[in-house]
Amino acid sequence: MEDGTVSSVNYNDHNSSDCYILDIYPLSCYYFGSKEAIADKAETLADRIQRLKTNYAANGLRTSVEAVILVELFKHPHLLVLQVKNSFYKLPGGRLRPGESDTDGLKRKLLSKLSVNEHGVDDEWEIGECLGMWWSPDFETMFFPYTPSNTTRAKECTKLFLVKLPASRKFIVPRNMKLLAIPLCQIQENHKTYGPIIAGVPQMLSKISFNIIES
Amino acid sequence: MEDGTVSSVNYNDHNSSDCYILDIYPLSCYYFGSKEAIADKAETLADRIQRLKTNYAANGLRTSVEAVILVELFKHPHLLVLQVKNSFYKLPGGRLRPGESDTDGLKRKLLSKLSVNEHGVDDEWEIGECLGMWWSPDFETMFFPYTPSNTTRAKECTKLFLVKLPASRKFIVPRNMKLLAIPLCQIQENHKTYGPIIAGVPQMLSKISFNIIES
Repeated sequence: MEDGTVSSVNYNDHNSSDCYILDIYPLSCYYFGSKEAIADKAETLADRIQRLKTNYAANGLRTSVEAVILVELFKHPHLLVLQVKNSFYKLPGGRLRPGESDTDGLKRKLLSKLSVNEHGVDDEWEIGECLGMWWSPDFETMFFPYTPSNTTRAKECTKLFLVKLPASRKFIVPRNMKLLAIPLCQIQENHKTYGPIIAGVPQMLSKISFNIIES
Repeated sequence: MEDGTVSSVNYNDHNSSDCYILDIYPLSCYYFGSKEAIADKAETLADRIQRLKTNYAANGLRTSVEAVILVELFKHPHLLVLQVKNSFYKLPGGRLRPGESDTDGLKRKLLSKLSVNEHGVDDEWEIGECLGMWWSPDFETMFFPYTPSNTTRAKECTKLFLVKLPASRKFIVPRNMKLLAIPLCQIQENHKTYGPIIAGVPQMLSKISFNIIES
């Protein structure tokens, strides 16, 4: 909320705590470096689907956790997105291990994908609230922001969490990925480029007012 | 969450309170009737824009509050949407009076648009959390789920609130409007029909799991 607009909004009733203000810092506050590439599962799409089906039969619902991380550029919130192999985009995160909590799994994934090494201190990443859950009825079609009604059971769930950045930090990204800062106005409804989950992030964030900290 | 899927999701960490479960009831639990039409401002688009600009100069940011109300049909959540003059769609709600709280304003609007009369009991509508805020840089273009960065100040804000229904109630709708129950799967990303705010409701609701109460 760059210009005090928020002060014009009435926050005096009991719902005010739900529409809250998030501090975001300029992109220039952060250092970006690289590290060794993460080994990539060399498998065909058909092999991948078979692997996910076998895992589902053994372990049930596949749950992934992903991070929504924001920085400021040109007075507008930008979302940090990984681009893999100069091709598709994904949020930093990944699949939970069986029995692992959302927070532990997301911290583990952020350490492996955005930190200098995988054995960082436990408080290196501040995992905030759940912003949304997306569901897939199988391993072949898209995700929906509600459970699919035409199938008996969702097979896959992706949960998004707000991750609050401190005023400075280092991002160290595997060489086979690029970390990009994409403006929310470019992401919104652009699901052809970013897929439905990333394209829905502006709506999932819409209860939050951004307070841009000048550097 | 119609089939127990939610039990497979790990809710055991400190974020679990954010991704919560909402009871929704079948459409057949509710009675729908009609009442006298609400008088309609007969003005041209140009007159409307001029009126809003004059109001902005006098009162500042124009804030509207709207209700997200859900029912179950065919085991899928449906959103209650008003269709005005067999044409455009809007959520039940309207503009706040100067100094009026979000909750008071939304209750007043729900009484006038969905209740038998405008002087209902104060607890007739249970206003829940804010789901999102949409902003417009002027009175002519669309709303965005973030403050516009290319203008100095937003002119208009629309705030959406979750309104929880009891197990039964009467909806009494002005004759010049129709209250429709639209499946979330039809609304999602269908902003050509419903506009950007309604089309973004499924994403704004995506942190909520629905518990469908059998009638």
